[in-house]
Amino acid sequence: MKYGRVYNFSAGPAMMPEEVLEDIAAEVLNYRGSGMSVMEMSHRSQVYQKILDDAEADLRKLMGIPENYKVLFVQGGGTVQFAMVPMNLMKNGVACYIETGVWSKKAIPEARRYGEVLVPASSADRQYSYIPDCSNLEIPENADYVYLCENETINGISWPSLPDTKGKTLVADQSSMFLSRPCDVSRYGLIWAGVQKNVGPAGMSVVIIREDLLRDDLPQYVPTYLRYKTHADNGSLYNTPNCWAIYCCGKVFRYLLDNGGLEAQAKRNEEKAAVLYDFLDGSEFFRATAEKNSRSLMNVRFVTPSQEEDAAVIAAAKAAGFENLKGHKSVGGLRASIYNAMPKAGVEALADFLRKYEKR
Amino acid sequence: MKYGRVYNFSAGPAMMPEEVLEDIAAEVLNYRGSGMSVMEMSHRSQVYQKILDDAEADLRKLMGIPENYKVLFVQGGGTVQFAMVPMNLMKNGVACYIETGVWSKKAIPEARRYGEVLVPASSADRQYSYIPDCSNLEIPENADYVYLCENETINGISWPSLPDTKGKTLVADQSSMFLSRPCDVSRYGLIWAGVQKNVGPAGMSVVIIREDLLRDDLPQYVPTYLRYKTHADNGSLYNTPNCWAIYCCGKVFRYLLDNGGLEAQAKRNEEKAAVLYDFLDGSEFFRATAEKNSRSLMNVRFVTPSQEEDAAVIAAAKAAGFENLKGHKSVGGLRASIYNAMPKAGVEALADFLRKYEKR
Repeated sequence: MKYGRVYNFSAGPAMMPEEVLEDIAAEVLNYRGSGMSVMEMSHRSQVYQKILDDAEADLRKLMGIPENYKVLFVQGGGTVQFAMVPMNLMKNGVACYIETGVWSKKAIPEARRYGEVLVPASSADRQYSYIPDCSNLEIPENADYVYLCENETINGISWPSLPDTKGKTLVADQSSMFLSRPCDVSRYGLIWAGVQKNVGPAGMSVVIIREDLLRDDLPQYVPTYLRYKTHADNGSLYNTPNCWAIYCCGKVFRYLLDNGGLEAQAKRNEEKAAVLYDFLDGSEFFRATAEKNSRSLMNVRFVTPSQEEDAAVIAAAKAAGFENLKGHKSVGGLRASIYNAMPKAGVEALADFLRKYEKR
Repeated sequence: MKYGRVYNFSAGPAMMPEEVLEDIAAEVLNYRGSGMSVMEMSHRSQVYQKILDDAEADLRKLMGIPENYKVLFVQGGGTVQFAMVPMNLMKNGVACYIETGVWSKKAIPEARRYGEVLVPASSADRQYSYIPDCSNLEIPENADYVYLCENETINGISWPSLPDTKGKTLVADQSSMFLSRPCDVSRYGLIWAGVQKNVGPAGMSVVIIREDLLRDDLPQYVPTYLRYKTHADNGSLYNTPNCWAIYCCGKVFRYLLDNGGLEAQAKRNEEKAAVLYDFLDGSEFFRATAEKNSRSLMNVRFVTPSQEEDAAVIAAAKAAGFENLKGHKSVGGLRASIYNAMPKAGVEALADFLRKYEKR
């Protein structure tokens, strides 16, 4: 790769498109004749307002976001959203969370601070290696919403289709699959995504929320910042936002539009993932852990016959220039995160390396 | 200025040192041979851990932060801290807020969500143009803390000396004067500063908190993210932080250390502010609005005889390349924010421009 860059398989923060980084580097000292870095600009200036407006407009175009949805750029990632979702959406004080791995599981105790949480389906029985059948969930009449994590980064599983929420509002954490494929936003009440996996630098979430879910009548203890309405009413400028992240993400939105949109990106992602899964399925040494119909195209988790062998492969891969292949500490094994910005050549090189390693 | 850069008098986000920006630009595509941008790095990687550790160590050195204080890098700025402070520090449910302008005033209703707020002193009577006498405040025995905003960006006033808190914990919002002069941290229980004014890009606050103020026994409704202890127990890595802001701020901390530390910076700031205040004091057209003993060295607010003249000066200044001299919409007039990174030449050029404008 150019500039001595490496294939970085980190689960997040993760790779960004090289063209986008080149563009950013060229603008650090003076953004398009403004005489300032984007980092130095008043968030109330015309030049910055255009950056923000363009980012939102491009994201709307990319995802086809209906007009009755607001797009919010909110500081913080999952930990903040785990609280904001129940604080803002629990009206009856009951919600259903589908437990499919570390990230959906982590959201549950935070939601329990604010109401009752039911878990109508879980894949804990087989180490979160699959998405459970959600065609006929037990969802109480007074449930405020059904929550899921659409791609579990750590176990490498992803929802093949959305659950039947029995008419209840669907809330999805899309952090690690955001913009990886077309998305019918109208099926969701709220989508949130920490941007540091598939879009830009850490420090922000994109929230897409249907307008009727914006509420004024929240409990007094909900801080101003943690009210979605605060951000919606002020075009994400109630306070100084993470201006830099919005700028960088805006460039990625534009990059995706210029490269065929989400249909084309989904095709590239399918091809990339197939390179790796096809190799793993044919291997006698490596094994993909996710069940076939739930495999993530973003995070490919796999193992060797032993933890010792896992560690040996990770070390050899690192020495060969493949960074961050170690699985999450909670599950071990190996994991190749191959988000939008990972070039196909990077996945092919990794598959090649693993093939040779196995032969040896 | 180099690179076609302008003198940017924005109240924040604001100028950063040119050398720091040059350094950042050079590292966007590959940070010191890591093969990655800092924006692409796992926050759990060794290379990133060193960036974080160095930033904290340099800040500790710069401010002489005692060992019994934790340094936290928390996402969000003032709006988040306005809630975090009372949520974490109100044990008896009573706090005293000194009202000296827009920012201290904004903190009060947010604190009232969580307990009783008393206002033992205010400078509202003269449009927040001075810091009130705080040598003998009425502070109840059960007050959890005394809160102040050490530099009011909008009205351009700053505390000449700290109040007598009668032994109660002092909490300071230092956002717009952070690192502008030496600071005896031991006099405070908690200091917080949004970094986008005097340090780096928006999207983060530095929190310096005395360890005994870190509590486990908070009300259930306090989100995990808004507990100082969450960040303190995990070295600011409970979740993915604003990695980019930490990196940029770390470079500014290092830059300040390399340029004589806070003593030298304070001297430079005094000299810069004197250039402008001396001119204003001698002018018959312009007038500084802050009372002399409360003048901010960071935000110099001034007016002409009329709003029409104010607007004319702002327009002429912009045409001459002096950006963002318009006062905050809530108070009008003009304001020159001359933070650490504003070169003395910029202030001299502005004073020169205003002198010529007045003659004409």
